[in-house]
Amino acid sequence: MATSQRNTSPAPATATEDEEDLWDPLLDHQHVDLRRHSSNNTSQVAIIGSNLCRIESLDYEIMENEFFKLDWRTRGRAHIVRYVILKWTLCLLVGVLAGAIGFFNNLAIENIAGFKFLHTTDLVVANKYLMAFGVFACSNFVLLMFAVAITSCIAPAAAGSGIPEVRAYLNGVDAPDIFSLRAIVVKIFGCIAAVSSSLHVGKAGPMVHVGACVAALFGHERLHKNHLTGKWLKYLKNDRDRRDLVTCGAGAGVAAAFRSPVGGVLFALESLSSWWRSSLLWRAFFTTAAVAIVLRALIEVCVSGKCGLFGKGGLIMFDVTSTTIAYQLLDLPVVILLGVMGGILGSFYNFLMQKVLGIYNQINEKGICYRLLLAGTISIFTSCLLFGLPWLASCQPCPDATQQGCQNLGKTRNLRNFQCSPNYYNDLASLFFSTNDDSIRNLYSSGTHELFDQFSIILSFVTSYFLGIISYGVVAPAGLFVPVILTGAIYGRFVGMLMGSRSSLDHGLYAVLGSASFLGGTMRMTVSVCVIILELTNNLLLLPLVMLVLLISKTVADLFNGNIYDLILKLKGLPYLDGHAEPYMRQLTVSDVVMGPLQFFNGVEKVGNIVHVLKTTGHHGFPVIDETPFCSTPVLFGLVLRSHLLVLLKKKDFLPTPILTSVDISKEYSSDDFAKISTGKSDRIEDIILSEEQMEMYIDLHPFTNTSPFTVVDTMSLAKALILFREVGLRHLLIVPKTSCRSPVVGILTRHDFMPEHILGLHPFLKKSRWKKLRFEGTPLIKKFMYILIGSAYETNNSISSDF
Amino acid sequence: MATSQRNTSPAPATATEDEEDLWDPLLDHQHVDLRRHSSNNTSQVAIIGSNLCRIESLDYEIMENEFFKLDWRTRGRAHIVRYVILKWTLCLLVGVLAGAIGFFNNLAIENIAGFKFLHTTDLVVANKYLMAFGVFACSNFVLLMFAVAITSCIAPAAAGSGIPEVRAYLNGVDAPDIFSLRAIVVKIFGCIAAVSSSLHVGKAGPMVHVGACVAALFGHERLHKNHLTGKWLKYLKNDRDRRDLVTCGAGAGVAAAFRSPVGGVLFALESLSSWWRSSLLWRAFFTTAAVAIVLRALIEVCVSGKCGLFGKGGLIMFDVTSTTIAYQLLDLPVVILLGVMGGILGSFYNFLMQKVLGIYNQINEKGICYRLLLAGTISIFTSCLLFGLPWLASCQPCPDATQQGCQNLGKTRNLRNFQCSPNYYNDLASLFFSTNDDSIRNLYSSGTHELFDQFSIILSFVTSYFLGIISYGVVAPAGLFVPVILTGAIYGRFVGMLMGSRSSLDHGLYAVLGSASFLGGTMRMTVSVCVIILELTNNLLLLPLVMLVLLISKTVADLFNGNIYDLILKLKGLPYLDGHAEPYMRQLTVSDVVMGPLQFFNGVEKVGNIVHVLKTTGHHGFPVIDETPFCSTPVLFGLVLRSHLLVLLKKKDFLPTPILTSVDISKEYSSDDFAKISTGKSDRIEDIILSEEQMEMYIDLHPFTNTSPFTVVDTMSLAKALILFREVGLRHLLIVPKTSCRSPVVGILTRHDFMPEHILGLHPFLKKSRWKKLRFEGTPLIKKFMYILIGSAYETNNSISSDF
Repeated sequence: MATSQRNTSPAPATATEDEEDLWDPLLDHQHVDLRRHSSNNTSQVAIIGSNLCRIESLDYEIMENEFFKLDWRTRGRAHIVRYVILKWTLCLLVGVLAGAIGFFNNLAIENIAGFKFLHTTDLVVANKYLMAFGVFACSNFVLLMFAVAITSCIAPAAAGSGIPEVRAYLNGVDAPDIFSLRAIVVKIFGCIAAVSSSLHVGKAGPMVHVGACVAALFGHERLHKNHLTGKWLKYLKNDRDRRDLVTCGAGAGVAAAFRSPVGGVLFALESLSSWWRSSLLWRAFFTTAAVAIVLRALIEVCVSGKCGLFGKGGLIMFDVTSTTIAYQLLDLPVVILLGVMGGILGSFYNFLMQKVLGIYNQINEKGICYRLLLAGTISIFTSCLLFGLPWLASCQPCPDATQQGCQNLGKTRNLRNFQCSPNYYNDLASLFFSTNDDSIRNLYSSGTHELFDQFSIILSFVTSYFLGIISYGVVAPAGLFVPVILTGAIYGRFVGMLMGSRSSLDHGLYAVLGSASFLGGTMRMTVSVCVIILELTNNLLLLPLVMLVLLISKTVADLFNGNIYDLILKLKGLPYLDGHAEPYMRQLTVSDVVMGPLQFFNGVEKVGNIVHVLKTTGHHGFPVIDETPFCSTPVLFGLVLRSHLLVLLKKKDFLPTPILTSVDISKEYSSDDFAKISTGKSDRIEDIILSEEQMEMYIDLHPFTNTSPFTVVDTMSLAKALILFREVGLRHLLIVPKTSCRSPVVGILTRHDFMPEHILGLHPFLKKSRWKKLRFEGTPLIKKFMYILIGSAYETNNSISSDF
Repeated sequence: MATSQRNTSPAPATATEDEEDLWDPLLDHQHVDLRRHSSNNTSQVAIIGSNLCRIESLDYEIMENEFFKLDWRTRGRAHIVRYVILKWTLCLLVGVLAGAIGFFNNLAIENIAGFKFLHTTDLVVANKYLMAFGVFACSNFVLLMFAVAITSCIAPAAAGSGIPEVRAYLNGVDAPDIFSLRAIVVKIFGCIAAVSSSLHVGKAGPMVHVGACVAALFGHERLHKNHLTGKWLKYLKNDRDRRDLVTCGAGAGVAAAFRSPVGGVLFALESLSSWWRSSLLWRAFFTTAAVAIVLRALIEVCVSGKCGLFGKGGLIMFDVTSTTIAYQLLDLPVVILLGVMGGILGSFYNFLMQKVLGIYNQINEKGICYRLLLAGTISIFTSCLLFGLPWLASCQPCPDATQQGCQNLGKTRNLRNFQCSPNYYNDLASLFFSTNDDSIRNLYSSGTHELFDQFSIILSFVTSYFLGIISYGVVAPAGLFVPVILTGAIYGRFVGMLMGSRSSLDHGLYAVLGSASFLGGTMRMTVSVCVIILELTNNLLLLPLVMLVLLISKTVADLFNGNIYDLILKLKGLPYLDGHAEPYMRQLTVSDVVMGPLQFFNGVEKVGNIVHVLKTTGHHGFPVIDETPFCSTPVLFGLVLRSHLLVLLKKKDFLPTPILTSVDISKEYSSDDFAKISTGKSDRIEDIILSEEQMEMYIDLHPFTNTSPFTVVDTMSLAKALILFREVGLRHLLIVPKTSCRSPVVGILTRHDFMPEHILGLHPFLKKSRWKKLRFEGTPLIKKFMYILIGSAYETNNSISSDF
């Protein structure tokens, strides 16, 4: 008999205002219009890519029920050997595939964009300016329209960089559409088209998503249906193994995008994954090593010139090795200034990006026509800028210092003469009228102090800064990394020019440091960005300066707002569970946030009750309570999952009377029945048809109930419960009463109960308390600094120290 | 009234054999002779440095008792700002100090050893061979005797590399002597003396210990007594903050030893720390950045030649930049072979090291005379080898290719002519008769195929391999890294020679890869070693090859035994808590391993009872149970700590009758009273003198009891409880009964209950089961491979997948 019970623990005495709000069933508001209230994190829908999707939590708990224990005992060594070999083989496959895709992406982009620029330049050289613009703008327009169309129609989840979605997945948020075969195909071709269309977006973010997607697909039920792989892949049918594989895949994506194997591992560690351990580090490293080797082999094939316009450099690799890079401690003030300014510029970039994305979300939700219109406008605007701006620059004679200089002008990379006569070059065209990779290579090259005009640099900085902001929100696969690196490099050059002869640093070095500071200001990563920059520039002597700049710019930028991925996560409404507790969580006990009614089942439960509860609630876990006649007082037997109940209902193996089952369950069911299938369609209660007679029968839930769920007492503070919930990776955390006088369980904590929006909705008085979530609008800078310090005091699960 | 209750949960039906063993109070065997049974991990003593010490567990749980909650509410923003500033300032200080100490170490070693070699070489050149040997051997002997004497007499904890101890500390094992002012002083000067004495040991390991020690000292009670710092440092009075700081400090140590800031962070992450999070990554990075900047500044001071024999290179920095390093995919087979052989050699090195250390431990325990005798023998043997071997090599003419070649022969680094005439050099002397850093630099230098004779390389490989093994166990600060790097480099050169003209790889590159493979084979680290090698050699183009070699050698070596630090940890008896569960832990429930009798207190307890229990047991946490008249049925109120009870007893603020206290505890006690002081002498119950009258009084424990301890039900498997215990970082985990019919708590799990030795001692039948801890002795290789696969299936807290 399913009983409905309300959590009646009183709210704390201070919670007098808005007390009615406390009992609003907030979690039932499942179809709230998220786009309008886009910061509502507690709802179970979120924007994945560009569309609104239902999301669910992942569950990393070991379900210790009787059936699982029986199944575990039957496992032989062969099972386990196969399992381990499978894990490593999958990592290898993911690495090889990610490397191949990364190479293919670059090959395609270099060839499409290269051909476009070549053709346009030829027309410019032939003085057919209008026709040149027509060809340039049209090809850009068509390419971008193609990208937006396939993204919108086939796989809306492929829009954007995908890094926020991957990050949310690795934090335990599951959306059915993030990882699908459609998403991966659209991501690859959409990214190629979007980047080739000279839109100011990068290819690194999408590669991360592609890498994670490749990894996730190996555990996907689609592949499982194919019986060739099904037999093997059944060993990867739980969330923990998928999480590990996706982590490796995401690392492989970064490694493929930047040709930076160590950077890839660190990126996955620092900014993507929420759970990490040493052995995973090794597996991720193995995956990225495979990427590095595949990339090297493929590039060797291309060195002979068989790959069209894809030259030796192709992949981002701004090899700026020069043994003469020198700096003194006297240069430190400039470097510090560079970091501070980079931090301010970066956080302002994030701020503007957040605003623009909010507007774009409203436009994009109106339908595909609006999406195409928005993208078309941006494409034409970009084309005009890129083609128009170089006319403002004056022609400059080719320098002798740069050996490749104007020698092969217009044909391949490096300086472009555009409208200038031979032996002259146009510096703005060299920055804008080429692929981003070429521009960055130009900016990073050392010994080129006179290459760019000061006016050109200012103009290009402003253009690059704002183009980056307005381009990212387009419904197409698009990354943020490369535009940020490019903008940062221009900014660095500009600072170098301002310093002039007062500084001994090379301008190429300034560009690298500018990139670092701008990356630190927007992405707020430290170690991984540092390693990626080192691997990109292939110069380890830069290390101390890059570290310094990153630390400063991150610190400065943190004063103003969060990192760009956190802002996007929030905008998308993804319930990211932070490791650190908000200060007010110390003041609340777990019973202050759980909401009634709590649904539970008896150990032997009527089928009709189970069906009713499953149909009327959206919960995924239910406590099982043994009452008389099985026990004298009500006893918490454990937790049963919705997915397992559905399996039982589908099997229709019911008992006529409420007695304990006596059949051998290990013969009735196989572990495959209970294996959690990957993201995608799971069984629905509505699809199970039961007769009236069956509805009156019973199921013995005992063998299928997790008998050792994690529990906390109702007096535990929310902050302490969060540590358990987050560190162990739970989906359901049962709350048991301190005194045994009441029901044996008083509530279930889920991810949504830890979301600040949910808690502040329940306890609005916290917003006014001194322990509220700190917001910085309109406070003077010194106060902000205080706030950020306070904020970071809770950055850890350790929070403030003196717990004695 | 303190009641003694026995855990009466029956052992599983299968546990029929040796059932009596189950109730042996194993944890009370506190003074078991660990040296004899040196693999006993469950005892509460371990070898720290070279002496046997008592160890304790650290506690990372937040103690949520009433007093703490009150105290927390009184905290203002100023407290928190101060706390955060303090944390970052301490990191900066640790970085600066570690950098300075690292520099000082190198300066001293380069000068002492340099002067020794200079003087000896002068004598050799003057044909005074016997006198040269006398000077060489005597100075080595005196230096090593000094190191051994100060280590043995002043700080035995400073012996060895210290990495196992730091690793254990970061895993939650506390030994009072690991971090002390004496240890740091002895470590620095002992390391300088030992390394200068031409003993085949390194300076990197001790630097890690020194870095961690510097960090830990900032939270040490010694400094706290000094009132200047006491006011500030009270914010760092818990284990979690100390753990973070020590992690940063250990990273700084690595960074200072290798001048490798990123490698330092990764080393701390991969092989030292057991808990990690993104924000700690940033703080560690900040610390190592400080190290890098300090080192650079100090080296800049030395460039002008003010530092004696400490030249430009000084610190390990085998700058082998050469843009011409080229390799094809065809070279892969050789590289793979190199990795495989490196793995085998490395694991054999570990095996021998383990045996030798076992013997040395027995010698060292006999007293300081034996220690000195052992060290003296090794020193004389080493001197004879180093001085004698070069006579076996033939003189070779100085190559023109090496520009520094023989030009400044005998004076500084690079090739040495030893007994040869000018313009000739002795290759064995160049390897052995110089500091390890110089030898490695010689081996790594590119374009020097003909520098070493094949016979010399074989001879030096054998010498270096076995000298490394016999040298480490000396009771003096000594690291393992540099000997392993050197041996690996010689091994790599040897492989390069064997390949001859069949391979296009440079022999310097072979040396680097050899080092990588040997490091992978002994240390079994991947990412951090990879980054450290890259930072050492300053050549990123090596990356894919280094990764490949490391992966192969680690995989191969893992087939045979564990990594060297794990072996040493085991030998020292440190109870390292692994994150992964052994397979048999799935079969056991938590009630199968806890041992009676369980001591608990009532909510209002008689002072006499508390004193009695504290005196008769060594437990550090006691459940507090409320019985009538405060509650109708016995209810678990929480957990009270021994240290807090001692504070209460010291305060002597007792109640005459068993009633609830009514005084304002926040006025009676300050949070400082309960702050956990750092490692070192804590209060002892024996020091508290109470009168007969006081013994009859009562204490209300409620305000000081942690009301929300983590609990698990007694049916939970040990493997699942381990996840909670390890991930959250607990010291005590309460076991509550499933049915409320019994006492509200049936046992307490501590670190020792999870130790395989303890569990297998309780349930010897597990040793015979197929799920036993896998041991490899005497099984054929293919079976070993199977075993290792099975072993690594459990390498994670996620263990085998199909829990449905």
